[in-house]
Amino acid sequence: MSYQRLHDKYREIGDLEHAQAILGWDEAVLMSPMGCTSRANSLATLSALVHRYKTASENEVLLKSAFKEKFLTEWQQANLLHIERSCRIASAVPEDLVVALSKACSECEQLWRVKRAENDWQGIYPSLTEVIQLTREKANYLADAAGMSAYDALIDLYQPGMGQAKIDPIFAELANFLPTLVDTVLEGQCAPLPFEKKIGKEKQKALALTLMRRIGFAFDRGRLDTSHHPFCGGVPDDTRITTRYNEAKFLESLMGVLHETGHALYEQGLPSDWRGQPVGEALGMAIHESQSLLMEMQVCRSREFMDFAAPIIRHELGIQEADSTIFGADNLYAHSIKVERSLIRVDADEMTYPLHVILRYEIEKQLLSGELEVKHLPELWSEKMTRYLGLSTLGNDGDGCMQDVHWYAGLIGYFPTYSLGAISAAQIFACAVKEDTHLLSDVGQGDFQPLLTWLGKHVHSKGSLVSADQLMKAVTGETLNTTAFKQHLQARYLSS
Amino acid sequence: MSYQRLHDKYREIGDLEHAQAILGWDEAVLMSPMGCTSRANSLATLSALVHRYKTASENEVLLKSAFKEKFLTEWQQANLLHIERSCRIASAVPEDLVVALSKACSECEQLWRVKRAENDWQGIYPSLTEVIQLTREKANYLADAAGMSAYDALIDLYQPGMGQAKIDPIFAELANFLPTLVDTVLEGQCAPLPFEKKIGKEKQKALALTLMRRIGFAFDRGRLDTSHHPFCGGVPDDTRITTRYNEAKFLESLMGVLHETGHALYEQGLPSDWRGQPVGEALGMAIHESQSLLMEMQVCRSREFMDFAAPIIRHELGIQEADSTIFGADNLYAHSIKVERSLIRVDADEMTYPLHVILRYEIEKQLLSGELEVKHLPELWSEKMTRYLGLSTLGNDGDGCMQDVHWYAGLIGYFPTYSLGAISAAQIFACAVKEDTHLLSDVGQGDFQPLLTWLGKHVHSKGSLVSADQLMKAVTGETLNTTAFKQHLQARYLSS
Repeated sequence: MSYQRLHDKYREIGDLEHAQAILGWDEAVLMSPMGCTSRANSLATLSALVHRYKTASENEVLLKSAFKEKFLTEWQQANLLHIERSCRIASAVPEDLVVALSKACSECEQLWRVKRAENDWQGIYPSLTEVIQLTREKANYLADAAGMSAYDALIDLYQPGMGQAKIDPIFAELANFLPTLVDTVLEGQCAPLPFEKKIGKEKQKALALTLMRRIGFAFDRGRLDTSHHPFCGGVPDDTRITTRYNEAKFLESLMGVLHETGHALYEQGLPSDWRGQPVGEALGMAIHESQSLLMEMQVCRSREFMDFAAPIIRHELGIQEADSTIFGADNLYAHSIKVERSLIRVDADEMTYPLHVILRYEIEKQLLSGELEVKHLPELWSEKMTRYLGLSTLGNDGDGCMQDVHWYAGLIGYFPTYSLGAISAAQIFACAVKEDTHLLSDVGQGDFQPLLTWLGKHVHSKGSLVSADQLMKAVTGETLNTTAFKQHLQARYLSS
Repeated sequence: MSYQRLHDKYREIGDLEHAQAILGWDEAVLMSPMGCTSRANSLATLSALVHRYKTASENEVLLKSAFKEKFLTEWQQANLLHIERSCRIASAVPEDLVVALSKACSECEQLWRVKRAENDWQGIYPSLTEVIQLTREKANYLADAAGMSAYDALIDLYQPGMGQAKIDPIFAELANFLPTLVDTVLEGQCAPLPFEKKIGKEKQKALALTLMRRIGFAFDRGRLDTSHHPFCGGVPDDTRITTRYNEAKFLESLMGVLHETGHALYEQGLPSDWRGQPVGEALGMAIHESQSLLMEMQVCRSREFMDFAAPIIRHELGIQEADSTIFGADNLYAHSIKVERSLIRVDADEMTYPLHVILRYEIEKQLLSGELEVKHLPELWSEKMTRYLGLSTLGNDGDGCMQDVHWYAGLIGYFPTYSLGAISAAQIFACAVKEDTHLLSDVGQGDFQPLLTWLGKHVHSKGSLVSADQLMKAVTGETLNTTAFKQHLQARYLSS
């Protein structure tokens, strides 16, 4: 009875989160520029309402009584734990801070779009300062309530159970391992034949749709659109991925689509009986990223995938016989595993990518603690870029500390999930191919069903029934560790 | 103080209505088919929340105290009256009925899309029966609270202050006047030269955007998209109109766009200081329709508009010299004022259109009272179509009683607003051209500014400061009447 009331309450919260998801997607994909204020207000009010639901005074009593109920199923018990966690987190933060943060983030994010394009750090920095200040307040409230550090409290929002004690050794290992490996690989790497042909957006989109369909994206439950930055949004029964098309770099757009397809297949594969309930949601952003990176890095940047995809790519893009070497599997594969030290995280290859993340991880620790003042962000950014990737960003903040929307949108503690996802992806995929040695050769034949069935069974259909740690243990027999990721990089990049 | 609290409350309601508007637009324009259940749930919960805000027990006390406040401005006083009305209407209907109706309408509307295409009355009629039954319940609650008839209570939702006592004599006059006029016009009418050329959607869209821009649609505060039925949605700072493109009938799509542009200009011209407050909203659906029909029927189907638009149409559609007569102003004008008895309301010309509406008005009275059982709807529809327009729809319910979404979406009492809008449009426009005799010749020169300034001043910027009756009186010196509409039809269709 109490459980059922909490369940019903969370059904309504799920309905409001549906609205937030669609409004958020709309904002990024097609909202009119002048609509931003009323959109920000609407999203802030939705946040406040969700917050009110989760902090209602009756919840405590309902939770106590629900925990005493017998005959709850395994899923209901897990759901109840998630509900408790969700109420606890919400109750730690006052509603006026929730609303102030929602509005400050909406405004800062809108402004960032303009100022990044203008490379205008001075124009965005006061707005970012406010967001960081409010985020600090929120983190402190969360930390007090949970008895953990402020930064851990934020990380825990994006990947429950994750924190600096687990991340520090993993990132230290990568920070030690990767730079030398990058040196070695760059020395031995041959430049692929360049794609000189410009590929129109319509053709790129047709190709993207064809490959999404072949991989298993359900188009009656989702769509592909265009936005400034690729993302996966919407809801499980209407999963919306986006990409951006660069006529000079079709493979980047395509890999973006395949990455988001990995996210989307996770969403579309979540347990349909638990729509709108916390236990029916994805297990956290690191696990989410493991699914996108498993698809992009492990599967679609493989030699096998290119064997399958090359003829489709040539067909959809209308490539002539004369260009069949440039658009052949060998050269496409060479492009897909090209390593390069570069300024922009989202364009980075899988080997340098963790260095971009480690830099952000180190900086956001300092930002949050106040050790780093926002105004000094550009210098520290450039210093760390120089250390990790040999590239300065002084005077080029648009491609430096202004390149990512995250901080401007109030997302601090989110960046680590990208690399934790990459590591998890390698660890999960290594087990998958060990269990079914034909997985990659099936992909080479254009048959993705065995892969999807395996992921569906072991990851997607589980929702949030078990914790991320438990999932990794159950699927791979080990807790999260870098072994498979390192082996994957060595096998792929040192084999030739 | 109490007023301010009500104001703040309605600001939050406005934020939720923003979400409803965007989710509703999204549903019609691009939602994935399988997303319909979660969307229906989300919209139902938003409806329930809005309902809870409006029926909160504190409202009565706040209203009483706010009405005693001194120093409220004219706008605040009007806003307070609207807030009172809004609370009164909401409090008349129990929340569980609001939720049940929201869900039943979402489901019935989704089903209608399928069943209409299949001409399957048997497949939709049980679902419609439920919607009508719930709407009856709602109407009875509203009627009891307001001391008016059930049907009047519904009409009043869409056009406050309107009701059968005002509509009956107006519709009786039109039902008497129009059939004879249609006969006369059809006898004397020459067939325009047919457009044999098919016009691609991309070209049609480019033309639509060009004319929208010339007329004054603000593209930083709105957009044009494609949907099954044309409509104007979104919010004032992000007004979204839609159309559908028929390659064989470009002028229909274009006139649809120009009609919706009229709606959009009203939305975009509402007083920006009152966003989200009831007094800042449009004055009702009849007045809204007066703005779309003023633009479409009075302005864009005029000879003057075609003089301006013909060269643009030829240019945007890439019409060759050989076809310049077919796409000349004379022939375009002849198409734009072609009268024809037809099955489909949305395709009807302005002269037969009121007959379609009168038929629906008569039927929904009976549907609501229970005098007509839903299952007998097809026969009565066909009988009335035969009487008013000489066309039977027996066995063709898809083009008969299933052609419009309104009843399936729970909109009963809405249809009259279309013809009330047409009458108001003629009455308002007659005054506009009397005051500024150059208005139409300016349009002929492509200058819409004088028209927009006049409409902005007399209608758009007023929001809901005064009642529709007061507005008509203030603008035209008379209450709503058919004189100008009848004169307009006679002048346009009997002059040649």
